[in-house]
Amino acid sequence: MKYQSSDLVPHKSAPLFTPANILNEDVCLPAAVIKKTALENNIQWMQRYADARGVSLAPHGKTSMTPWIFQQQQAAGAWAIGVGSAWQASVAMASGIRRVLMVNQLVGKANMQLISQLKSAYPAVEYFCCVDSLDNARALSAFFAARNQTLDILLELGVPGGRCGCRTTAQALTLAEEIARLPALRLRGLELYEGVLHGDNPQPKVEALLRDAAALACELERYVDGEFILTGAGSVWYDVVCNVWLEAPKPANCRLVIRPGCYITHDEGIYLEAQNAILARDKTACDLGGDLASALELVAMVQSVPESDRAIVNFGKRDSAFDAGLPQPIAHYRAGKSRELAEKSIETTGIMDQHAMLKLAPGTDVKVGDILVFSTSHPCLTFDKWKALLLVDDSYNVLETLETGF
Amino acid sequence: MKYQSSDLVPHKSAPLFTPANILNEDVCLPAAVIKKTALENNIQWMQRYADARGVSLAPHGKTSMTPWIFQQQQAAGAWAIGVGSAWQASVAMASGIRRVLMVNQLVGKANMQLISQLKSAYPAVEYFCCVDSLDNARALSAFFAARNQTLDILLELGVPGGRCGCRTTAQALTLAEEIARLPALRLRGLELYEGVLHGDNPQPKVEALLRDAAALACELERYVDGEFILTGAGSVWYDVVCNVWLEAPKPANCRLVIRPGCYITHDEGIYLEAQNAILARDKTACDLGGDLASALELVAMVQSVPESDRAIVNFGKRDSAFDAGLPQPIAHYRAGKSRELAEKSIETTGIMDQHAMLKLAPGTDVKVGDILVFSTSHPCLTFDKWKALLLVDDSYNVLETLETGF
Repeated sequence: MKYQSSDLVPHKSAPLFTPANILNEDVCLPAAVIKKTALENNIQWMQRYADARGVSLAPHGKTSMTPWIFQQQQAAGAWAIGVGSAWQASVAMASGIRRVLMVNQLVGKANMQLISQLKSAYPAVEYFCCVDSLDNARALSAFFAARNQTLDILLELGVPGGRCGCRTTAQALTLAEEIARLPALRLRGLELYEGVLHGDNPQPKVEALLRDAAALACELERYVDGEFILTGAGSVWYDVVCNVWLEAPKPANCRLVIRPGCYITHDEGIYLEAQNAILARDKTACDLGGDLASALELVAMVQSVPESDRAIVNFGKRDSAFDAGLPQPIAHYRAGKSRELAEKSIETTGIMDQHAMLKLAPGTDVKVGDILVFSTSHPCLTFDKWKALLLVDDSYNVLETLETGF
Repeated sequence: MKYQSSDLVPHKSAPLFTPANILNEDVCLPAAVIKKTALENNIQWMQRYADARGVSLAPHGKTSMTPWIFQQQQAAGAWAIGVGSAWQASVAMASGIRRVLMVNQLVGKANMQLISQLKSAYPAVEYFCCVDSLDNARALSAFFAARNQTLDILLELGVPGGRCGCRTTAQALTLAEEIARLPALRLRGLELYEGVLHGDNPQPKVEALLRDAAALACELERYVDGEFILTGAGSVWYDVVCNVWLEAPKPANCRLVIRPGCYITHDEGIYLEAQNAILARDKTACDLGGDLASALELVAMVQSVPESDRAIVNFGKRDSAFDAGLPQPIAHYRAGKSRELAEKSIETTGIMDQHAMLKLAPGTDVKVGDILVFSTSHPCLTFDKWKALLLVDDSYNVLETLETGF
């Protein structure tokens, strides 16, 4: 049952004046904005990193689910876009993406049907999904064989206590043998996500998993015609993935693919920390020049200052991630003019569905109607709160409305 | 910048077969479903409660932001729909809602502009917003006076350490006097949200706030022409709000309005607890017969069983609330057939963006491709992950696609 969407405002941060500037209150606040300069910087930086290492880049698109961003990533040289579901694959293909790496299992009749339809609708697009069980392999084989279609698959290697993926290389090899006997499935390589490894010092565990994967790839090589795809790496260990896999023995015709996602907007929270660790340990990242920059901001307005040390702003859990620390203010404007924001003078201490609570240090001058700009962490869960984000220049002029595909 | 949305699938849980049954895998999973029987029960139950107490019901629409649900609530007798922002007000008005209670401050040029446009586009709709500061009152007065429009406002009363709202009745009275001198603003009553009161035994504090509010209402009466609107109550204290306000001295022509929101789908988490407390202490709720029922479910599929005590399902933080406990399985199906789900045999122990991790008790038979149905808490943050939810009958046949307006 559809409703007649208002002509007045197509989405919740729609600009209501033209041309629109965020600081001039031309846009319904709160709004999620993407700073174009930082976004372009990040797209270029990560592509240059991959190029410098001689690996392919398949940015994980689930972070932004923003077709315009997918297009920029592809135009800059991305080999593929990563996705997490059949629906996300459909958004990527509808956006003109030519290779879609679904780094997840494809399960259920409707999800398989959607992929089958996409393969018909976009015959030139290469699509991959992951398999880690014979049950799933058999279901996929039966479904696609009945439609005379072939499905390109990657075996997934996992870790005990982790997420999906075969738990041992022996299991993976057995599964590969069985897959080789099933119609409609074409094994193309090996996938893992080392980001599930945690703990005090996960790097040795990450490296061991990567070495195991390279050795497994050598054994799987005989089941793969043509190029062998070996892929891993979220935004935290992409340097280590390159280091280990570039050095390790691997299939002769092997394409290494890294899949960072959150680099696209970066943040000033968990991903800033991760990137700082990479810069501290990785020569290529250091020598590359420049760095990732925070590109996603939440712009909100003070709606109440009910106590001298307390202000309420008009964003909440409906607008922002809150699972990796609360959004914190990084800039303060009054009547379009920037004001000094002393460190810790304004701190977000609570969040409800439609409000956030700020603690004001003594003497901090905050008024109803002031605009505050917030950084958020992690980016994925801010993106998915918005039907559209606003692309802005460094002066917060709105350049484009970027629709999302959640 | 728009993208060409795929004709194949308009939203992420789109049915791909007709007629569609969830358990038959006709729908891309995961999917968020609304059980029609439970939804209708909840709409009726809360309306009957309000009717039995002789108060008006303004369901907080921010929970569902689903126009079809707003329409059902209005048709069942709701006096108004509550919203939290100008954007939400626009969705309610575009849905045919005749009275919109924005229980929040209206700030910023674009948000005011949107309300101004809505007042022109929907002249028969009554719209209210809340004011708790002279700064905001002056800004609203200047904006709407310049457009020859009148804005109906409610004074907001708050509590120290709480959210918005005047902190004392004296402040509120002073503000009312000042508002009376400003053009374009018409004071219509008093609003509060007692749900910000927490602690070990908040009931006495809630009751004290409500008594203060009633006394303040008597003093504010002279600033209000016609009916005085006195409104409070989320889903946790609506009985207490009725008890105190029905007994307290109040303005002669006073309309009491309660604003529960989450009752619409209820849940099996924090709102089940809250409702049980109400049933335990409130005679009207007890005598009414029946009760609220959980109406919002998440249906997902097992995509991997990588260890004997561990399964991975294909929903995650992109699909569900996770701020009030993780979604927990309430039903298990294999090939369309229901299976016994022993208590604690399957427990959700972790969630990532696109996956949830389940712990399986020894001997629990879970396979790749099994469907699990989950209850979630709290409902607001599950709704806002979906462009559309599926209305289903008790056998999970899809009856309607319900678009949301987030």
